[in-house]
Amino acid sequence: MIVILKENPDRDQLAGFIAWLEEKGIQVHTSVGENHTILGLIGDTSKVDIDLISALDIVADVKRVQEPYKNANRKFHPHDTVVRVGNAQIGGGTLTLIAGPCSVESEEQIISIAKAVKASGATLLRGGAFKPRTSPYSFQGLQAEGIRMLKLAREETGLPIVTEIMDATHLPLFEDVDVIQVGARNMQNFNLLKELGKLRKPILLKRGLSSTYEELLMSAEYIMAGGNENVILCERGIRTFETYTRNTLDIGSVPVLKTLSHLPIIIDPSHASGKASLVPSLAVAAVAAGADGLIVEVHNDPAHALCDGPQSIRPEVFDTLACKLNALHKFLKTQPDV
Amino acid sequence: MIVILKENPDRDQLAGFIAWLEEKGIQVHTSVGENHTILGLIGDTSKVDIDLISALDIVADVKRVQEPYKNANRKFHPHDTVVRVGNAQIGGGTLTLIAGPCSVESEEQIISIAKAVKASGATLLRGGAFKPRTSPYSFQGLQAEGIRMLKLAREETGLPIVTEIMDATHLPLFEDVDVIQVGARNMQNFNLLKELGKLRKPILLKRGLSSTYEELLMSAEYIMAGGNENVILCERGIRTFETYTRNTLDIGSVPVLKTLSHLPIIIDPSHASGKASLVPSLAVAAVAAGADGLIVEVHNDPAHALCDGPQSIRPEVFDTLACKLNALHKFLKTQPDV
Amino acid sequence: MIVILKENPDRDQLAGFIAWLEEKGIQVHTSVGENHTILGLIGDTSKVDIDLISALDIVADVKRVQEPYKNANRKFHPHDTVVRVGNAQIGGGTLTLIAGPCSVESEEQIISIAKAVKASGATLLRGGAFKPRTSPYSFQGLQAEGIRMLKLAREETGLPIVTEIMDATHLPLFEDVDVIQVGARNMQNFNLLKELGKLRKPILLKRGLSSTYEELLMSAEYIMAGGNENVILCERGIRTFETYTRNTLDIGSVPVLKTLSHLPIIIDPSHASGKASLVPSLAVAAVAAGADGLIVEVHNDPAHALCDGPQSIRPEVFDTLACKLNALHKFLKTQPDV
Amino acid sequence: MIVILKENPDRDQLAGFIAWLEEKGIQVHTSVGENHTILGLIGDTSKVDIDLISALDIVADVKRVQEPYKNANRKFHPHDTVVRVGNAQIGGGTLTLIAGPCSVESEEQIISIAKAVKASGATLLRGGAFKPRTSPYSFQGLQAEGIRMLKLAREETGLPIVTEIMDATHLPLFEDVDVIQVGARNMQNFNLLKELGKLRKPILLKRGLSSTYEELLMSAEYIMAGGNENVILCERGIRTFETYTRNTLDIGSVPVLKTLSHLPIIIDPSHASGKASLVPSLAVAAVAAGADGLIVEVHNDPAHALCDGPQSIRPEVFDTLACKLNALHKFLKTQPDV
Repeated sequence: MIVILKENPDRDQLAGFIAWLEEKGIQVHTSVGENHTILGLIGDTSKVDIDLISALDIVADVKRVQEPYKNANRKFHPHDTVVRVGNAQIGGGTLTLIAGPCSVESEEQIISIAKAVKASGATLLRGGAFKPRTSPYSFQGLQAEGIRMLKLAREETGLPIVTEIMDATHLPLFEDVDVIQVGARNMQNFNLLKELGKLRKPILLKRGLSSTYEELLMSAEYIMAGGNENVILCERGIRTFETYTRNTLDIGSVPVLKTLSHLPIIIDPSHASGKASLVPSLAVAAVAAGADGLIVEVHNDPAHALCDGPQSIRPEVFDTLACKLNALHKFLKTQPDV
Repeated sequence: MIVILKENPDRDQLAGFIAWLEEKGIQVHTSVGENHTILGLIGDTSKVDIDLISALDIVADVKRVQEPYKNANRKFHPHDTVVRVGNAQIGGGTLTLIAGPCSVESEEQIISIAKAVKASGATLLRGGAFKPRTSPYSFQGLQAEGIRMLKLAREETGLPIVTEIMDATHLPLFEDVDVIQVGARNMQNFNLLKELGKLRKPILLKRGLSSTYEELLMSAEYIMAGGNENVILCERGIRTFETYTRNTLDIGSVPVLKTLSHLPIIIDPSHASGKASLVPSLAVAAVAAGADGLIVEVHNDPAHALCDGPQSIRPEVFDTLACKLNALHKFLKTQPDV
Repeated sequence: MIVILKENPDRDQLAGFIAWLEEKGIQVHTSVGENHTILGLIGDTSKVDIDLISALDIVADVKRVQEPYKNANRKFHPHDTVVRVGNAQIGGGTLTLIAGPCSVESEEQIISIAKAVKASGATLLRGGAFKPRTSPYSFQGLQAEGIRMLKLAREETGLPIVTEIMDATHLPLFEDVDVIQVGARNMQNFNLLKELGKLRKPILLKRGLSSTYEELLMSAEYIMAGGNENVILCERGIRTFETYTRNTLDIGSVPVLKTLSHLPIIIDPSHASGKASLVPSLAVAAVAAGADGLIVEVHNDPAHALCDGPQSIRPEVFDTLACKLNALHKFLKTQPDV
Repeated sequence: MIVILKENPDRDQLAGFIAWLEEKGIQVHTSVGENHTILGLIGDTSKVDIDLISALDIVADVKRVQEPYKNANRKFHPHDTVVRVGNAQIGGGTLTLIAGPCSVESEEQIISIAKAVKASGATLLRGGAFKPRTSPYSFQGLQAEGIRMLKLAREETGLPIVTEIMDATHLPLFEDVDVIQVGARNMQNFNLLKELGKLRKPILLKRGLSSTYEELLMSAEYIMAGGNENVILCERGIRTFETYTRNTLDIGSVPVLKTLSHLPIIIDPSHASGKASLVPSLAVAAVAAGADGLIVEVHNDPAHALCDGPQSIRPEVFDTLACKLNALHKFLKTQPDV
């Protein structure tokens, strides 16, 4: 941590501040310049609250040198984390396809889509039971019934299930769910994150609409600090000034998060674009960028889907796409790392 | 609602679609152009799911003409809502000052700040007991203890208290709280909003970091749809590309939200800027723009505040500021509406 | 174009407005609803100024149905445009690699890099002679001398040259340049665009930092309206709230712009990320997304480059990367379109 | 400037780097930590290119401590700059109102508006002769004719004139213009800025749609580095995710730019909102925030304005508004600084 002092800082305050730091076991190196004096804080500065220092009268600015996350940090955990779910895995060189409808609508619907996506190569089934909708008047999901239907589909196909939680009080319903998804709007629902940290179940953590990489990793850290290391990061598009697409897919998140963290990262091309016609290009780009997997909305009748119809692709499109993605993934393994 | 059809739409699908709309009591006016056919949907289109229509094969685009919120909409409720809390009120031509520390830290701290801000003219006391912090390693608030201390401060000063809720399971602790605050990161925690809709207590709803006006009003609608009409909107800065300030205060939100809605709107200049030195200018601008009130962080020792120190102003600064704000508010009443 | 009227519009004004539209050869279809009356304007509404209509007292809102660009619009020009430069081409199923240093620094530098990138498969050479720098105190490019050196490098290697213009008055210096680049900061320098519209030389038009797809295509339209149809679109990252990377690559721009327009689209992964280590992943993703080419900063000594060193890759990295990109492009041709 | 080294930096490279810095007269203070070594660079680091250092193999990150602008920096020029134009002045405690139509349309129009706004208290007349329009098919301004008409209006009223330049080649036409405006889209047209730096005429520099405070001040620095110190900064709304308003007024820019720089700052509420109904609230807020002036679009017939009609207010609205703004400005002088 680097502390830039204001011009002519009060000498007593400065001495007091340095003494306070040294008490905490932090070494302070002082560099006196013409216009500024700079303190270099050496040691475990994670115990030091940056806000507190910023507020001191003698301080002009504070800059952090180390990342504020530890468990999620590749520096302290150089090897890729592999999250295992039943026979499936996320990370470790595999390409994992998670597919299914936006919402679970009926037994027939979820079972037929589950069979279709399994046949196309998906290894996990997604489906919303609790749906975060902007409007209180929109369909809110089948809730407990939806989860029951997902389990039926799992029984029929053997595919582990991924579904979104909206509130910690619903946790009992998720006991037999394989992967719990935290949606973009809940990425900083810190109470929920803490509760999920007590589980040992995989958590698929979606990046918030306007969350930075660091904030995403800090939310992962909330879960990991509780002891649950099975976190899967998911980029699903960020909010920008562009309105043609629902969101803007930040493809750079893949190499960046791979650099900063050891956690697997998957891409959601459906929410990122909001348009079924764009999903295949974004999916192919995501695999090329090095994503560990994809989560894709697939619906057998998008025109009558109870939510997010416009961004769902049909099972036959998913079939061709999955085939192409797997071929691409295999091809890229033959290529040199650059 | 306006539906723009693709070129050469399938005639059978089109007939089916129109029949389906008419069944729902919606009249359809068709305008056939050279390149496009446009359907004007007349009637109560709030029953029609825009996503579902967008997903139809024959549809190129759908544009809404009416706002998707009703309870919060000024069109259906032309008079300003006034929210009453004890002897205080928010809206209706009053300027309401809500002040207090970011976090409750001790009995002495909260009581002394409460006395100070009351003496300066604040009519509500704010103070965080549950703190949403980006890092799991930062101070998370005194929680139940903090609420107890807030109540003590209320006893001492008579000021009603405002404090943030982070999870619906904490509601029992908030039973005796006067105004419940929903933070920016929870603005779309729809389960929490639904629970708050069951109360009749005032809810201070903060705009999310990257939420549009419409999304803010839809979140208010969640609360109001449950029957709780005591919603206070709060602009606290949005996230933009600018990094010099913590957020960017969207001062235009005041006249815009006053146009779209009848709910009172207050401004949080502390979070909007993140810098104590900017708070007074933003506060003065907010009153000038027509805000119904302000929520301001005041701390007697910002340099040792346990959170958000850099954005807290000292009681003596608040005193001069409050005086200026009240004088300005009074002055503006002598001026013509433009 | 759809015009939504205010409630109870003045009948005389409305009649006058409709008469005025009909004079312009536009048919008006009126749909009267409970709360709103909607006018559907049918015909060539490109003659109608949307701002003018918005300002009418009786108008609540105006929504455009047709895109405001024509020459750049795929609807009126369904086949892909192929831009030819010497033996190279951009668009039409080829993958075009444009490579070279941020700035031309010396004859030796530009010739040696030109030779290297040619050997690796680049078919055009880039190099900045006029450099738009945020600071007046930074190196501003070798200017005329830089262009002279680029021509030397072209003589030595046969590679056509691409270089940026900053001002229309410099056009005489660009007479013998093969492709003129318009930088992100000049995307809406409309005078410059008009001047470039008078040429028949290819123009590489970079998207502005916060320009929408429509604005980019309108800027292309400025050039094309002058008669110059040789426009190459370039996505180089947009400005968002994320600060870890210099910009955020909008990979979705590739399929979107391919849908909206027939113009070729290339990606600049160097400016998009600002970090050499991220360039390869973004480049591979761009090819996968269907880009017609890439423009990449390559420098033999990035640590001593006079500008943008951190985002330049070394010639040996470019060599491996180019090989991988070409193999990927070839592989994707064997795959089905999805 | 602070340089954070990578772990285990090559000792020879490090020694070479330090020697190179010391040659430039820069002192280097080294702080060795457990994970990081930090160099504090003391002296005039404006000679050191930050990009160059970032690109070094041994460097992890570089952080600047000093602002990169000097002429525009309040630190080196503590007193407010006052820009004088005829009898008017901008800065120095005055409230300056600049008003007039978006575009000059005819002699009658500009003269009648000029007379009206003068009568209401405006001290400068604005009017566009060269209009930057997104579409090549929109009205582009009366150009030379427009400037001629502005001069006529000046003759009639005595109001100095402000008009926008789009290209340095048009400078001869601006010889007798009192204040030259640089539009948001040209804020980083560095060639134009350099040319304007050669003049001694006041330049009204608008902030770009997505430009940071620092970038705005660097563009001012381009003009001032040429010797022209008469720069007026103008905030006109930035581009955000919100689409209800044309732009988002960043009211915080007023206190921030006053802190960072000594240059006067004015606000353009018309472009910031894009809606005439919002202009008065934003204008009042701007004066309250401490702006030195306003530039407001006023049109006698907004419904038939050739551009930007929806955001122009009528002369009678301006009259009441100007009166209110002046009263507010006077009132605020009676209030304490906070």
